[in-house]
Amino acid sequence: MSTIKASVCTIGDEILIGQIVDTNSSVISRALGELGIRTCRMVSIADDRAAIINTLSNELENNEIVICTGGLGPTKDDITKDALAELSGTDKYVRNAEQEAIVHQILSARGLDVLDINLRQAMVPDSCEVILNRRGTAPIMAFTFEESRFGHPAVLYAMPGVPYETEAALPDVLKHIKLHFESEPIYHKTIMTYGLAESALSKLIAPWEDSLPSDMHLAYLPNPLTGVRLRLSVYGADSDAEKRVNERIETLKPLLGANLYSESDDTLEGTIGRLLRGTGRTLSAAESCTGGEIAHLITTIPGSSEYFLGSVTSYAPEVKQKVLGVKAETIEQFGIVSSAVAEAMAEGVRKLTGSTFSVATTGWADAYGDEHEPAGTVWVGVSGPDGTVSRRFQYKGDRKRNIERFAASAIDLLRRYIAK
Amino acid sequence: MSTIKASVCTIGDEILIGQIVDTNSSVISRALGELGIRTCRMVSIADDRAAIINTLSNELENNEIVICTGGLGPTKDDITKDALAELSGTDKYVRNAEQEAIVHQILSARGLDVLDINLRQAMVPDSCEVILNRRGTAPIMAFTFEESRFGHPAVLYAMPGVPYETEAALPDVLKHIKLHFESEPIYHKTIMTYGLAESALSKLIAPWEDSLPSDMHLAYLPNPLTGVRLRLSVYGADSDAEKRVNERIETLKPLLGANLYSESDDTLEGTIGRLLRGTGRTLSAAESCTGGEIAHLITTIPGSSEYFLGSVTSYAPEVKQKVLGVKAETIEQFGIVSSAVAEAMAEGVRKLTGSTFSVATTGWADAYGDEHEPAGTVWVGVSGPDGTVSRRFQYKGDRKRNIERFAASAIDLLRRYIAK
Repeated sequence: MSTIKASVCTIGDEILIGQIVDTNSSVISRALGELGIRTCRMVSIADDRAAIINTLSNELENNEIVICTGGLGPTKDDITKDALAELSGTDKYVRNAEQEAIVHQILSARGLDVLDINLRQAMVPDSCEVILNRRGTAPIMAFTFEESRFGHPAVLYAMPGVPYETEAALPDVLKHIKLHFESEPIYHKTIMTYGLAESALSKLIAPWEDSLPSDMHLAYLPNPLTGVRLRLSVYGADSDAEKRVNERIETLKPLLGANLYSESDDTLEGTIGRLLRGTGRTLSAAESCTGGEIAHLITTIPGSSEYFLGSVTSYAPEVKQKVLGVKAETIEQFGIVSSAVAEAMAEGVRKLTGSTFSVATTGWADAYGDEHEPAGTVWVGVSGPDGTVSRRFQYKGDRKRNIERFAASAIDLLRRYIAK
Repeated sequence: MSTIKASVCTIGDEILIGQIVDTNSSVISRALGELGIRTCRMVSIADDRAAIINTLSNELENNEIVICTGGLGPTKDDITKDALAELSGTDKYVRNAEQEAIVHQILSARGLDVLDINLRQAMVPDSCEVILNRRGTAPIMAFTFEESRFGHPAVLYAMPGVPYETEAALPDVLKHIKLHFESEPIYHKTIMTYGLAESALSKLIAPWEDSLPSDMHLAYLPNPLTGVRLRLSVYGADSDAEKRVNERIETLKPLLGANLYSESDDTLEGTIGRLLRGTGRTLSAAESCTGGEIAHLITTIPGSSEYFLGSVTSYAPEVKQKVLGVKAETIEQFGIVSSAVAEAMAEGVRKLTGSTFSVATTGWADAYGDEHEPAGTVWVGVSGPDGTVSRRFQYKGDRKRNIERFAASAIDLLRRYIAK
């Protein structure tokens, strides 16, 4: 069975001028991937009749499934529906009574009058099948094309462009796809590593990678803040695929060691949550150069209030001394960016909050630096029941980027300490 | 002069499978728009040699400028460079000494060995012009095509796909574009507002907007975290454009009042810096639900160490009491999310750090809430020489989104207090 190919097309001037970022394509392609359907292209085009017809024709020639979103609103600049009617060879519209009822329902819930322009939303070209949109006024339309038209059977789906409506309608579209196409099964597994650059990782695991069977594909997805994500995929997966992939991952683990932090698509701060939740152990942070970013990341995790007690951002040296109890002599002797200050900050905030673990940062995020350490340097301290440790990291970004990388390095050092 | 057309192509399996959302296209098209260049299409394709060559050829046939990003990494799955060499009719590579020096610099700053695979990054097809990438190892390549090839002169730019590197390299690419293409002169002025929704703002300034001369265009660019950005543009701008636009902005100011916070493209936290820097006045923060996000935003501003003394993230009620001196009775009587607690936190951290101003938050970022306040509510307290004030805000997002909006609302209330 060959893989079914799909294309996702987003329509709207606001995407082309860069006013909004298109997130629909990503949501749709991920959902198609779960069905084993491969998204081969994503295209964004303006609200322009000729561009819509040309692009969709071209995508239909090259793909069995084309999903377009956007341009279905009631205003003048939304012209997708007319373009689709022309593409499917009709100029007749029919009223869809069920969608019209939803239009009435939605507008009256918002306390709005139902205008002619709203009712027009429930009119669809007679060439399409309607999938109801329960969250919005514009119905989803499915246009089926015979093999004679594009050289293969093809279906074009037109969905609303508002992400909330697109997501809500997606399961019904997928159901329609499953009824009309028999797709190749696919199996993906993602694991997360931190601490090795892509090139070093690739060198380390080259023998393992070279020994993979030919139907297994490895992808490196590096991100400076979350590390390198490794994805192992089996296309045309049989019932054994999951087991076979897991066996390979097991043989990879000893090579990765403590650099492996998640066997799913988790973040470093999510991993901290996994390690602490339900254990009664708690955490605090003392931040200088990272200025609150560590606390922010930790608290983006739902349920973090169970283990995160709080943090102190000590930007001024006086706050380090007064609130965290770092001695003036320590700062003077070793410098404000030093192993000694990072460890004293970690110990100070642990004492202040009574937490089980603590993490602290002191560094130069940008153009400064002093006689002890250059710009781009951070010292991270971690304290806990096994004592206090510290480590130095160095980066070469701008201020904002360094802050983010400092925070990621600190959370990773904390993770290694807790996991040990 | 006709408008120059551009296409933005992003390359990478991780986009097609929906693992990451493509933000580069949006950043690039916005930047092109400022030069008066219209982005007509955005296309995302997989790391597939034939797809890359076919798509780029097709885009070059229809556009004078094609910018592609991604697929330039050092590993086996990054094949864009070879595809570009083929497209431009060469198989010869040359070493770029300057980029190679940057490769050495970046890796040694990270304490990493320079491997052969890294040095290969500095090898480029002999058909291209190199624009240095100072933030990463892969250089930007510009391929110029004569009119005979695609029916019009065209330039193809290949940029790295990591958003941080793409953004950093963009100004140099735009400079190259300005040298090679004559685009219609254009004058933009952007001002920033916070506190009015797009619809309310549009209603408020409708008479002013209707009176604009026909060559001036107003665009509303709403963003929940930075407010509504207003951009006034004059296409085909003459030498008077700047003066004429500024005169119009002057007549708009009384309508906007304190909602206007910047007459350039500044952020709320940047505005705080502008208000405090060089005045000797200082700032501290106490955060509960925002968990460090306010301190993080404030300290992303270069030079913030001049006025930002520090902050306390008091996630646990004990930290609120012990470190910030909020009385247990206050919490008990009014609830942890209340005007009284927000004001006590602001006063507590101001006393602790000795700062001129302070800002504090206490709220329910997600599914919780109590008998006093529902989820999505935040109380913001601001304290300073004129006393302490507080205000309640309510939002309806998920946890992460609410935290971001709480922080923006808090920084805005602080800004209004300081500016008064």
